[in-house]
Order: sequence, then structure tokens, then C-alpha cells
Amino acid sequence: MSDANSLDALIQALKRLPGVGIKSAQRMAFHLLQHDRAAAQYLARALQDACTLVKHCELCHTFTEHSVCATCMDEKRDHTKLCVVETPADQSAMERTGAYHGLYFVLMGKLSPLDGIGPHELGLKKLFDRACDGEVQEVILATNFTAEGEATAHVISEALKVRGIKPTRLARGVPVGSELEYVDLGTIAHALVDRR
Amino acid sequence: MSDANSLDALIQALKRLPGVGIKSAQRMAFHLLQHDRAAAQYLARALQDACTLVKHCELCHTFTEHSVCATCMDEKRDHTKLCVVETPADQSAMERTGAYHGLYFVLMGKLSPLDGIGPHELGLKKLFDRACDGEVQEVILATNFTAEGEATAHVISEALKVRGIKPTRLARGVPVGSELEYVDLGTIAHALVDRR
Ligand SMILES: [Zn+2]
Ligand SMILES: [Zn+2]
Repeated sequence: MSDANSLDALIQALKRLPGVGIKSAQRMAFHLLQHDRAAAQYLARALQDACTLVKHCELCHTFTEHSVCATCMDEKRDHTKLCVVETPADQSAMERTGAYHGLYFVLMGKLSPLDGIGPHELGLKKLFDRACDGEVQEVILATNFTAEGEATAHVISEALKVRGIKPTRLARGVPVGSELEYVDLGTIAHALVDRR
Repeated sequence: MSDANSLDALIQALKRLPGVGIKSAQRMAFHLLQHDRAAAQYLARALQDACTLVKHCELCHTFTEHSVCATCMDEKRDHTKLCVVETPADQSAMERTGAYHGLYFVLMGKLSPLDGIGPHELGLKKLFDRACDGEVQEVILATNFTAEGEATAHVISEALKVRGIKPTRLARGVPVGSELEYVDLGTIAHALVDRR
């Protein structure tokens, strides 16, 4: 696009963002350099800070800057319930229903054999250890109602049954084929009450 | 989404990219921190490098790391022709046709009165000075065939006529309403030959 190598490098770097193709990357680079260099500098700093500071909660595996996240540390929550979700965005959707007051385990992904993500890569052992720690009495599977989310729930369910735990699943009030973070909150709240 | 302030800051920073909403920003942040921190570091460096190194060519106004860009420095190009385009991506589309061997002036935008971009904000004086430097004998207006691109071409055309220069415009082989960088190269090449 130019004789500026640093501009070409920026376009290539932006293209590595999910959902960003070459045209979008060019437009982003043009916008940042022509109209909003402050945003570029801000993004550069934000990326570095996040890479330095963000790690995983030792208990629930979600993103946090601390060894244990604020949710897991909250004494007022019901520590006997553990809700398994795929991502922090899904956890956030559960929270916004106001219908759940237990703890979470955030898988930070889902089983996806075609991408080489099996139970080991997803770190399911950590979930099983957590579910069997004696304090947890109910595990609620709230993975997405997609093919991969259902398969993930099934594998976790079978593994927990072997360990003497019978998990519940969000009721099928959630439209099949949809992703949790896009579902309206009333539907999620209903599905939580009707969990089976 | 979490108790990690640096993660929230990263999401806000990504949201400032054009075309990126809150959901996309969350997905990008999740992807970078969970799966590709190397890409995050690479992007942070690329942003800083580009902000430091990329400036505008003194002659054609496009992005370059030098005071005058490689295209303007190229002795083999026809220095009597000046093609006016909106963005470096449009210039790149013109180049790929292989049908033009003159120089460029890159507006780095277009007239957009609703956004407060008038002739002064767009820096048209620099174009007029360049067009009247005695070396340029033909100015080809290759702004986009959108309403704003046409208006920009019209304003430039009128101003150049006052200065004794009658510019040409790419022929309307280019589909009206479309943006140049998405048009197939043959159409652009034809429109260049038929310029009026
Ligand atoms: Zn936690
Ligand atoms: Zn130049």
C-alpha cells in the first residue's frame, strides 16, 4: 500500500485480530494514523498492560489481575453451586440475569476436536478437581446450546457422573443453535429456574 | 466483564477501532489474551512504530517514512500527470491496473461538510499549489464515484479551472455509487483510458 514498512507491519498486525481481513485492517490503520493517533497510542499501552497484568483466577480460571478473582472471593455468594460457562462474556450474561448467586468455572473455550481442543487442552481436570473439592454440591452446565457447547456439556456430565456428581443443565428454554451471550436475559433466567 | 481493569481498558481501546463494537472488542480481547498474546505484543509494537515513523509525503501527501515517497521520487514516472485519489488504498488500486504511470496526490479523505471537512480541513491548497507548479500538465480526478467523492471532484475541478487548468475525470465506466478500492481492475483501467 505504501513505501512505509511500519505501516505495512501495522496492517499485518491488525489482520491477526479475529474477524479482521485485509480491507478492514487497511481501513483501521488509515483511520488510526490519519485521524486518531491518540487511539493508536492508547491501544498500544492497553495491549501491553493487559498482557502484563491479566492472568487466570486459580479457582474459576476466568481473567483477573489477582490470584483469585473478586467473584470467587465474594463471601456472600453461594459456594455450594458451580456454574460452568465457556467464556467471561457468558459469565457476564449469567450475572446480568440476577438469577444466579453461586460461583463459576469458566472454561475459556469449548471442546473442538477439529481444532485439536480435547479435554486435556481445555484443562477439564481443573474443573473436575474443583467440582470434587467437597464444598461444591451442585454443578450447573451453562455451555452454549451449539453443537460444540452441547458436546462439551455431555463430556463434562459423563466425567462428573463417574466421580459421583450428577450435574444439571440449563433448561432448553434457550433457543437451540444460539450463543448464550446474545440471548435475552429473561430467557436465560427462565432456563436457570427450569434447569434439569 | 471482569475485575481486571486492564482488560476493560483493552476492550475500550479496541472499541475505538472503526467498525468494532462492544461484542467484537470483547471477542478480540478474549482471543488475544487467551490464545495469542504474541499477536497482542506484536500489535502494540506495530502501533508504536507506525505512530513514530509514518508521516506524510511532502509532495503527494500519502503515508511514507521519508520526506518524499518512493512514487514521487521515481524518475521513470510521468511527472506531467497528477492523479487525485482519496486514500492510499485507492492509489494502490490505480497502481494495480498497470494503466497509469504518472504521479499522485492523495487527499487522505474527502469533502464532507456534515463532518466539518471543508476545502481548508482537507488541505486542498496544497493540491492547487502542486497542480500549478509548472511541471504538471494534466490533473486526473479519481475520487470515488460516491456522492461525497463526486462533490469533492466538482469542487477541485472548479477551483482548478479558475487557475487555468481543466482537469479530467475517470470515465463513468466505474459503477456509480461504488468505492474505487472494491472495483475490478479492468473497469478502472477502461475508465482511465476513457477519461474525459
Ligand atoms: Zn475466580
Ligand atoms: Zn509522494
